[in-house]
Amino acid sequence: MRQLYHLAIDPGCRAIRVLLAEKGLDCELRTEKVWERREVFLHLNPAGQVPVFIDEDGTSVPGTAVIAEYLEEAYPEPSMLGTSPLDRAEVRRLSSWFADKFHSEVTVNLVEEKIMKRFLGLGTPNSGAIRAGLANIHYHLEYIGWLCDRRRWLAGDNFSRADIVAACELSSVDYLGDVPWSQHSGAKDWYARIKSRPSFRAILSDHISGARPPKHYADLDF
Amino acid sequence: MRQLYHLAIDPGCRAIRVLLAEKGLDCELRTEKVWERREVFLHLNPAGQVPVFIDEDGTSVPGTAVIAEYLEEAYPEPSMLGTSPLDRAEVRRLSSWFADKFHSEVTVNLVEEKIMKRFLGLGTPNSGAIRAGLANIHYHLEYIGWLCDRRRWLAGDNFSRADIVAACELSSVDYLGDVPWSQHSGAKDWYARIKSRPSFRAILSDHISGARPPKHYADLDF
Repeated sequence: MRQLYHLAIDPGCRAIRVLLAEKGLDCELRTEKVWERREVFLHLNPAGQVPVFIDEDGTSVPGTAVIAEYLEEAYPEPSMLGTSPLDRAEVRRLSSWFADKFHSEVTVNLVEEKIMKRFLGLGTPNSGAIRAGLANIHYHLEYIGWLCDRRRWLAGDNFSRADIVAACELSSVDYLGDVPWSQHSGAKDWYARIKSRPSFRAILSDHISGARPPKHYADLDF
Repeated sequence: MRQLYHLAIDPGCRAIRVLLAEKGLDCELRTEKVWERREVFLHLNPAGQVPVFIDEDGTSVPGTAVIAEYLEEAYPEPSMLGTSPLDRAEVRRLSSWFADKFHSEVTVNLVEEKIMKRFLGLGTPNSGAIRAGLANIHYHLEYIGWLCDRRRWLAGDNFSRADIVAACELSSVDYLGDVPWSQHSGAKDWYARIKSRPSFRAILSDHISGARPPKHYADLDF
């Protein structure tokens, strides 16, 4: 049985879960408290981070982007990356936009400050970081709306890894109730389409102990 | 003619130059002062960062990892990524280790503090960041030595993108004279092999105005 070492709130782990579901691949989830730095886990990934994916043959692959490329090569159908080198570059560009840029400008400032710091007993959230995250999210939501005015999905005509990565970053922030959907109807329409996909259901039923999501979090009509 | 918008000290731009040279692809270099945020350039890459690669047919591809994957697909020979999904995952894992982890723990603390801040008039370097960079580099050099004890190149038997990305990060720090080679003979032997490759020559002849490299920087025997 395939395994995924993960954390429920981590957007990269969520993206791999959705990718696996889109490709119809079963996988057992194992919560890994990365802060405990277990030796067995560090052997799987010396960087000490989730996600780490273990395939049926025991192959171990660490890191969101690395796992995503591996899944595309080992299980090419259905493709979440596109066919031409240029189409694939656009999917990768936007995946990196959300996994790197959105993540550091928004997710880290909100999810790490509000959730991870409390779990790890690292003191009170930094209000400056939270303000920055709440300010930065607007231009990313505008960008999603701008893209969806021109394309059916973020990277083109087809649903792709770019939509998955972006939606999973947003889902982690939405768990805190910090996505201003009402001010960004284009991004909201796009996210509603993703929420209705069966591959996204498990993400929407996640509950992190001690931190309840807002009422609209799992609603398809939000 | 292909074009690469780049900055000479940026390790990601350097990695694309070496990849292009290994694949025998000519490319015209264009220095892009990203801090000027030129509108034409932001149109090529809304993230406003180098590298951006323009292929012969006008295809525009932004971002080090995205360009590297594009080059592998558009110009597969010689491969810098390997053949099996598992081999390719290991190359990508180590490329990400150096492009992301080494970069944020070492390169940003040294190159941005010592070079970029001065160029941009952002004040004096942060001595705490520099101390952190100088401390963090040791375990990365030990990791290179550990890998090279077990493998011919970082990710396996073949020279790959992982070697290129790691060597380019180190070359930017070495331009400042901040790599403690004498304490890490394994990493030094590996870097000497890379320095002797024709694809690396242009990197070693880079001179950034107002900042001279140390005498050993371009020496094959250092």
